[in-house]
Amino acid sequence: MDERVREHAAVLVDWSARVEAGDDVVVSVAEDAHELGVAVAAVLGERGATVTTLYGSDEVERAYLKGHEAGDAEGFEEPAVDRALFEAADVYLRIGGGRNTTATADVEGATRRAYATANAGVREARMDTDWVSTVHPTRSLAQGAGMAYEEYQEFVYDAVLRDWAALAEEMAELKAIFDAGDEVRVVTERDDAPDTDVTMSIAGRTAVNSAASVAYDSHNLPSGEVFTAPYDTEGEAFFDVPMTIDATRVRDVHLVFEDGEVVDFSAGSGEDALASILDTDPGARRLGELGVGMNRGIDRFTDSILFDEKMGDTVHMAVGRAYDACLPEGETGNQSAVHVDVIADVSEDSFIAVDGEVVQRDGTFRWEDGFEG
Amino acid sequence: MDERVREHAAVLVDWSARVEAGDDVVVSVAEDAHELGVAVAAVLGERGATVTTLYGSDEVERAYLKGHEAGDAEGFEEPAVDRALFEAADVYLRIGGGRNTTATADVEGATRRAYATANAGVREARMDTDWVSTVHPTRSLAQGAGMAYEEYQEFVYDAVLRDWAALAEEMAELKAIFDAGDEVRVVTERDDAPDTDVTMSIAGRTAVNSAASVAYDSHNLPSGEVFTAPYDTEGEAFFDVPMTIDATRVRDVHLVFEDGEVVDFSAGSGEDALASILDTDPGARRLGELGVGMNRGIDRFTDSILFDEKMGDTVHMAVGRAYDACLPEGETGNQSAVHVDVIADVSEDSFIAVDGEVVQRDGTFRWEDGFEG
Repeated sequence: MDERVREHAAVLVDWSARVEAGDDVVVSVAEDAHELGVAVAAVLGERGATVTTLYGSDEVERAYLKGHEAGDAEGFEEPAVDRALFEAADVYLRIGGGRNTTATADVEGATRRAYATANAGVREARMDTDWVSTVHPTRSLAQGAGMAYEEYQEFVYDAVLRDWAALAEEMAELKAIFDAGDEVRVVTERDDAPDTDVTMSIAGRTAVNSAASVAYDSHNLPSGEVFTAPYDTEGEAFFDVPMTIDATRVRDVHLVFEDGEVVDFSAGSGEDALASILDTDPGARRLGELGVGMNRGIDRFTDSILFDEKMGDTVHMAVGRAYDACLPEGETGNQSAVHVDVIADVSEDSFIAVDGEVVQRDGTFRWEDGFEG
Repeated sequence: MDERVREHAAVLVDWSARVEAGDDVVVSVAEDAHELGVAVAAVLGERGATVTTLYGSDEVERAYLKGHEAGDAEGFEEPAVDRALFEAADVYLRIGGGRNTTATADVEGATRRAYATANAGVREARMDTDWVSTVHPTRSLAQGAGMAYEEYQEFVYDAVLRDWAALAEEMAELKAIFDAGDEVRVVTERDDAPDTDVTMSIAGRTAVNSAASVAYDSHNLPSGEVFTAPYDTEGEAFFDVPMTIDATRVRDVHLVFEDGEVVDFSAGSGEDALASILDTDPGARRLGELGVGMNRGIDRFTDSILFDEKMGDTVHMAVGRAYDACLPEGETGNQSAVHVDVIADVSEDSFIAVDGEVVQRDGTFRWEDGFEG
């Protein structure tokens, strides 16, 4: 077995999920993620945890949902077994890596929504565990990223096999600045793209140091971003990173904010998909997240939010739902059924400022060599 | 998808497990059983059941157990998640079909036993469901059977895709004879092998019409045998069908019974493995089962008990534990930690008699054309 697979497993179990002896761990293994599933089971055995292995197959799910469409049953019942198993679990490790990223493409939207509704309690039980989501590099994911298989493996391991403790320490600096700050301003001035100049309030909000570990309220491996829940956004912002939203390719998104709301928007492509997102509900026109990518192991965009939003020298904003971890106890932040991220490259001709003080310019942070305040 | 896979799925869900709308179904999918897993999920969706899919990977289990051997944990704890999930399940469908039938060969015996002990409650919860075990034909199983892949596929579907209702009706005739009878005698007289002439009591015992359905107390697909729990066995019996017991090839087993106990034995090969079985405990020297194979879709021995013991024109006896379904309420039959079947071809120069009346001669039952009492 590739040594990197073993290292990935150890990072997932020890750094990310903080598994201890006696923990009851559920592992979901996607169709082509067998190798990482094997490596994770070995580490769990060493740690003295128990393991229950689910088969996270999109093709099985698609067959079930299409079967349901063809059958007589009115709606979906809650899967009592799924609920019981997540309620009994301490830790849930989701290993993605199927054979076809579009395996469920022909399932009707109404079916998906009905199934998701029936699974609300299951999802809640799952989120109550120390859960972590990662991916095993597969040919299907390589194809989705437009890369060769071995090239994609290197890409994934560069992103996952970091010195996470050191990155967590560095990210703590930005978190401290966000936590103490009242207002963030993001500016980019490039010849080849519309300007960004947007300000938002972060007073009273708590930033998350998303260091790929449940110990940091972070549930993705890789991670490597600091994010918070802004409000009262003003100005305009341009997001050049292409991505797929609801199966539509969207790029060059331009958003204009007034009084915290998107009042105008355009996209170089996929504008209809963007419009549909923004029309979901009132909260879909307000920001739920401002995030700063700080994982320099990620060196390119692959149209996967698990990687793209954590890339160093990027900033992302999400319209829609805010995360509870960023909000004062008892306060509900922006509410919405959606949470859709858009990403901007800030490696050049850009700065991020908090309360008027530049924190990052052209991709270099205040505490790094070469910073030109 | 091969139409036979869809048919296999429908037989499993509808005939074997009797799944109804609202049932909570757990499906375990082995490494190479993806296709049947997909087909089963489709049928479960149509029936309006819920589905939870486990990954039944021997390699994952091996990694976990070897990891445990390498780690510091003293023993195994009961997997609380497995217990909870089977307790919440109505139906459990186990689909075998891994990539290597010897994937766990290097796990220490002590590790296996300790893990099995920790899982006793899980096993009990699993047996309390309407459970059915089947296999998807894989290359690994074809190799284990010494067959080409496509040849093995045909073999499996010939065994599985029967007219089960018709076979159940036929098997009911033999069950009625066993249930009404007091003594069974099995005789073979062949030039090329030691004679068999063995009698056993079945008075008070109930035969199981093992028609591959939970509705018949039958939990294997394929099945196709009638079995009961005999006692007070006398005489000698020869079992010519080769099989692998505890990783040892065993063939030409000869057993001599007095007062219900094996008092002498030999084997053409694997005699040590046989001796070890018989020495397990006192119950290991007495019969726990007499079974008559009635599935004529199975036309050869493949060293798999799931198929071999159900083959038409065979008789098998098991030393060790008796099945509760054959015993009067409250009575414990033969007790043992083992249950090991040995199989004899009775297609020629043989007969089975109940209370002195021949029921089958040379593989032809009393109710069939060509029967020569």
